Amino acid sequence: MSDTPSREFYAVIPAGGSGTRLWPLSRSQEPKFLLDLLGTGKSLLVDTIERLAPFADPDHVFVVTGDAHVPLVRSQAPGVPAKNVLSEPSPKNSAAAVGLAAYVLNTMNPDAIVGFFAADHVIQEESAFQEVLGRAVEAASSGHLVTIGITPHEPSSAFGYIKKVREFSDNGVHHVGEFVEKPPFLDAQRFLSSGDYLWNAGIFVGKVSAVVQAFDDFASELGTPLRAIADAVVEGSDFRDLWEALPSIAFDYAVAEPAAKAGQFLVVPGNFGWQDVGDFASLAGVRDNGSPSDVIVVGDATKVHPHDSTGIVVGSSGRIITILGMKDVVVVDTPDALLVTTKDHAQDVKQIVESMKEQGLDTIL
Amino acid sequence: MSDTPSREFYAVIPAGGSGTRLWPLSRSQEPKFLLDLLGTGKSLLVDTIERLAPFADPDHVFVVTGDAHVPLVRSQAPGVPAKNVLSEPSPKNSAAAVGLAAYVLNTMNPDAIVGFFAADHVIQEESAFQEVLGRAVEAASSGHLVTIGITPHEPSSAFGYIKKVREFSDNGVHHVGEFVEKPPFLDAQRFLSSGDYLWNAGIFVGKVSAVVQAFDDFASELGTPLRAIADAVVEGSDFRDLWEALPSIAFDYAVAEPAAKAGQFLVVPGNFGWQDVGDFASLAGVRDNGSPSDVIVVGDATKVHPHDSTGIVVGSSGRIITILGMKDVVVVDTPDALLVTTKDHAQDVKQIVESMKEQGLDTIL
Repeated sequence: MSDTPSREFYAVIPAGGSGTRLWPLSRSQEPKFLLDLLGTGKSLLVDTIERLAPFADPDHVFVVTGDAHVPLVRSQAPGVPAKNVLSEPSPKNSAAAVGLAAYVLNTMNPDAIVGFFAADHVIQEESAFQEVLGRAVEAASSGHLVTIGITPHEPSSAFGYIKKVREFSDNGVHHVGEFVEKPPFLDAQRFLSSGDYLWNAGIFVGKVSAVVQAFDDFASELGTPLRAIADAVVEGSDFRDLWEALPSIAFDYAVAEPAAKAGQFLVVPGNFGWQDVGDFASLAGVRDNGSPSDVIVVGDATKVHPHDSTGIVVGSSGRIITILGMKDVVVVDTPDALLVTTKDHAQDVKQIVESMKEQGLDTIL
Repeated sequence: MSDTPSREFYAVIPAGGSGTRLWPLSRSQEPKFLLDLLGTGKSLLVDTIERLAPFADPDHVFVVTGDAHVPLVRSQAPGVPAKNVLSEPSPKNSAAAVGLAAYVLNTMNPDAIVGFFAADHVIQEESAFQEVLGRAVEAASSGHLVTIGITPHEPSSAFGYIKKVREFSDNGVHHVGEFVEKPPFLDAQRFLSSGDYLWNAGIFVGKVSAVVQAFDDFASELGTPLRAIADAVVEGSDFRDLWEALPSIAFDYAVAEPAAKAGQFLVVPGNFGWQDVGDFASLAGVRDNGSPSDVIVVGDATKVHPHDSTGIVVGSSGRIITILGMKDVVVVDTPDALLVTTKDHAQDVKQIVESMKEQGLDTIL
């Protein structure tokens, strides 16, 4: 892969999900991928687009997102042509988002190679990522679908796993044996010690024609209407009724797993500081710069006064925040909502948000 | 004591102290005694004035407070004549505050009886309090100074103690042997088991002439200038220079202890739900109404969403406050400052405020 953008490569960024475990920082109206979680001055979405620049100029970047988020996506990524921001009338899970972009690209350039990249993941070693992506693109020219698997370093049950089987080429590319959903801890331990499993980072690459073929072969209940929807998108006509009738299903389940079983999926192992910053405990991990303070501050650190405390404080309200004698605390202070919890409860924030939704508190969510 | 206000009784309320352990609820500009800590719709100061109504009409109530607090005191207690709000040019500790009011009253009515009452204490059983105060006033007619001592129910080292010695009258009034400052815990245990000690609630009563005589006898370095200051107050002339030269000393130390040693102090024991709500742990105690929730809410409870948590949430910002998995937490959410700590650290808030003051954060304190 050269350092100049390939005219034959397209990057698709499905930007869905509301990041409820990061409430009240992440909101339904301004979800995780639109936030500057890393303090770089740029959102995770913009970080993702810029990371892909050696492969895809902005006019080769597509973002698939909910109707409500189209304006913010456009303003954050003004280089991406307006027609490349594909709007979902309603959330229909990842298979619909991936398929929408694939079938639209298929009307334009079926011989191109397309990569799909999560909008809200953190990658700390960009050049390592680009090297691995280059190998994936190369492997995809064979006509296979190619995922990138992260070398695991702990038996996490927070990620899906990819089992690598027989070698495809001598540069580390293997066939995928199976995709495994988030496993119980004991299975994760077994996966880690076997050395045969990689974390599923939700990245995959393939010829446009191969991606739509996989939909046609393994998920025609999605493929058939998505082909019609893509035509409507290109023509600028309405496709809402077709969209609403789509089954809501995950791409891994609908397409990737059967394609892997049919021997059509390859995996390139990679190790480039990948993190899915899914909750405040992992945000604390990714923001820990080894500073002498025991409290990670996201926001204006001059406003935060920790005493005898550890944890993370996220401040966006401009107020003075004083914490005293708290261990592994999580304080998220926004203009209209405050969350106080601990790192141990970081995963449970999702349930809290759901219970607040049931109480009709949507305006704050 | 009859239920009609006595024309011979005056109530003096020294309203000083900033309640730093209740920061950021209590501020230097709006300290504890001006706050509605109990959720009654009235400040502790106004509660104090109303509790004394059977003894003193508002025109027989004097409030001694800092210059900065005079406007709020006047607006909260419009029935108290403006001239009865005595303004301290600078904080000079309790002896100066008590003495200022005593010498001013001495110019008006030396034969009257005066009672001194903390502005920021909670008394839950008003009729029991009034009965005990009646006995104290009766005992004071003998010319002694009379304090009210609270029957202790735990070996607290947060309060001063009063040792009662020989009986003065057959209705439970005793001579005071000594006033003891906040003792170490082991001493407090000994005091409790002896049955001879009472908590010092900072309440005392005496003839005006007896109070000023005690200043003249035991603290003439205060008494002499305070007599001149009182004359200036009555004349409406400036007394700032005299005030600034006053020694800053506690009333107990300057006057009460030597008067007790000279056999001039009596004590009436009482038990009327007295509490000095000095920190957020004690605020949680006094606000615990036995509701099913494990989290005490001070403020709009509809905004507070506790999950699997215990403690106290004080909300005055109007924001949604969600707490999750916190034990004995203290969350104090005001429009410009947030405190997160635990009940165990409630006493340490004072040091935090002092350290913030050293950092030049006065505007938030």
